[in-house]
Amino acid sequence: MIVLFTDFGLAGPYVGQLHALLAQQAPGVTVIDLFHDAPNHDVRAAAYLLPAYTQGFPPGTVYVGVVDPGVGSERSAVILNADHRWYVGPDNGLFEIVARRAQSREWREILWRPARLSASFHGRDLFAPVAAMLARGVVPESRIATPVSPGGAWPEDLAQVVYVDRFGNFLTGIRASAVPRRARIGIAGSELVYARTYADAAAGQGFWYENANGLVEIALNRERADRRFGAAVGTPVNVLLV
Amino acid sequence: MIVLFTDFGLAGPYVGQLHALLAQQAPGVTVIDLFHDAPNHDVRAAAYLLPAYTQGFPPGTVYVGVVDPGVGSERSAVILNADHRWYVGPDNGLFEIVARRAQSREWREILWRPARLSASFHGRDLFAPVAAMLARGVVPESRIATPVSPGGAWPEDLAQVVYVDRFGNFLTGIRASAVPRRARIGIAGSELVYARTYADAAAGQGFWYENANGLVEIALNRERADRRFGAAVGTPVNVLLV
Amino acid sequence: MIVLFTDFGLAGPYVGQLHALLAQQAPGVTVIDLFHDAPNHDVRAAAYLLPAYTQGFPPGTVYVGVVDPGVGSERSAVILNADHRWYVGPDNGLFEIVARRAQSREWREILWRPARLSASFHGRDLFAPVAAMLARGVVPESRIATPVSPGGAWPEDLAQVVYVDRFGNFLTGIRASAVPRRARIGIAGSELVYARTYADAAAGQGFWYENANGLVEIALNRERADRRFGAAVGTPVNVLLV
Repeated sequence: MIVLFTDFGLAGPYVGQLHALLAQQAPGVTVIDLFHDAPNHDVRAAAYLLPAYTQGFPPGTVYVGVVDPGVGSERSAVILNADHRWYVGPDNGLFEIVARRAQSREWREILWRPARLSASFHGRDLFAPVAAMLARGVVPESRIATPVSPGGAWPEDLAQVVYVDRFGNFLTGIRASAVPRRARIGIAGSELVYARTYADAAAGQGFWYENANGLVEIALNRERADRRFGAAVGTPVNVLLV
Repeated sequence: MIVLFTDFGLAGPYVGQLHALLAQQAPGVTVIDLFHDAPNHDVRAAAYLLPAYTQGFPPGTVYVGVVDPGVGSERSAVILNADHRWYVGPDNGLFEIVARRAQSREWREILWRPARLSASFHGRDLFAPVAAMLARGVVPESRIATPVSPGGAWPEDLAQVVYVDRFGNFLTGIRASAVPRRARIGIAGSELVYARTYADAAAGQGFWYENANGLVEIALNRERADRRFGAAVGTPVNVLLV
Repeated sequence: MIVLFTDFGLAGPYVGQLHALLAQQAPGVTVIDLFHDAPNHDVRAAAYLLPAYTQGFPPGTVYVGVVDPGVGSERSAVILNADHRWYVGPDNGLFEIVARRAQSREWREILWRPARLSASFHGRDLFAPVAAMLARGVVPESRIATPVSPGGAWPEDLAQVVYVDRFGNFLTGIRASAVPRRARIGIAGSELVYARTYADAAAGQGFWYENANGLVEIALNRERADRRFGAAVGTPVNVLLV
């Protein structure tokens, strides 16, 4: 299975070209559009979304991860093998948090290059063909390497909004398993208490909960949190333990 | 074939997780993204869209229908078999109009539960796995039941806007077969006459027509109806028979 | 392989119905959502996008192209065979530029009609079934014909914005191979120089480059061009050779 995680937007002309390439180079392999509206060019926010949304896939899964503001520059291209799943994408920190949380990890720099490599669409020209190879059991020309890494400059959990969903909810980069249920979450001057889910909060009441992918998420029951709180991707949140 | 009808939005991280689950639990089964932008949490509007957009699928088709503002509450989960098609989703009225218009119908409450059920994403954790079972010919643990039903509180046709499409057209919850062609349709202070299609209306003229799924739809020729009329999902429409 | 190129919008209820039809009438054939947000009803702009985005597909590929403001009128339906690829859609100029640039071309008017043809959704009722036939090796009832053609009224390259992508970049209808690198591109009162890619431009600097599909594209490094320049689909651009 090949799983796509990008900031390309599902609507435009980019994702279809990935599918066209994969249909030709990995025929018969299932391709999943997991997430195509990662915050544009925001590698760090995407890095904290990635491990939450790639849980539960079987060993051998190949992820194509593309949030790549440096495309066309000298940044290299990497393959990460983490806990027997493959991650293919730019060497810019996108896979940092996945690797940090994995039991096993091995990084390779991709040396293979296609006959024609555009300056702006390595997703189609480089990463997707490499993913097709891996899905067919072929490791492309590559060498063991140490990736670019922000290291300690990136925290264990990211205390900010990393995504605003269709319902106006705020996803944060904080794992709910790291937050006691008695904690309040501060955002944009408000402090929110925990609720198990919508049905446990009064109408119009803001609350935080553990979303279905294990992240702290901020919502209102039957209203849109994005309209209530003046927040967006990047807005800081605070964990308040009293 | 498994057909998805939700208010999740195609763009976000939700639909991809349904596909990932189905690819693993119903391998080889075609999965169709029929409609993912049903009006958010608006069960009644969605209930009138559903029978219009699920016409024409073969017997044995499994629909996953999720518009589910009460997820995580005590509402139960149902399977409806209507005219030899399966509908899987929350017991909240979403399948009311499909069932009402069917020749045959049988309701079951789903008793089966997955090993891990999140509080907020039953589409992935409960309804999709049940759909995968049905697509494989397996009926999960369940019992014949009477569903929650708004009954007569929901009319035969819903005289309001239920969807605004990409072209700015207003879809209503009224079957065109129920409206004589001489009728005018009132919306937002205007009265519109029937035209067979765009090409039969003057440029800039508002009209109503029978859309390709049998609903009364309101449009302008070569302009956007949503810009002309101050209307949105929920705006009432009237059938005026002179 | 069947490849879809439309202005239906991926989100709404239209694309899913194409997939449902094709899954039934061309089972096992790969269907690619290449482009579903071509400018609404803008046949000319779409005609210049089409050849750029349909490069690289193998012989025998069947394209369904639908930008069809005249649906339901007397316009006919065509099949174009260009360089051993099939194009199916309305006879309104949409395939004009593809045909003009092809080495070989043959046009047919589609005479076949389905048992039920809606007035507004020929994509589902006519073009998709014809595409399914072609993908199965069947040419439907048709006759060699001369298509509607704007001819010389449409230039070799279209000097305007034809699409604004998710990152705020402007795609033009100009092939980059037709423009010397020393040329400047004028848009909305600004003049932009060439850069190979983002990484070669200073932060906040506007530039033009050859995009991954061979078109002249206008961008800013790490900002959105659509916010900087008051432009949209249809805004003219100029090629300035000093």
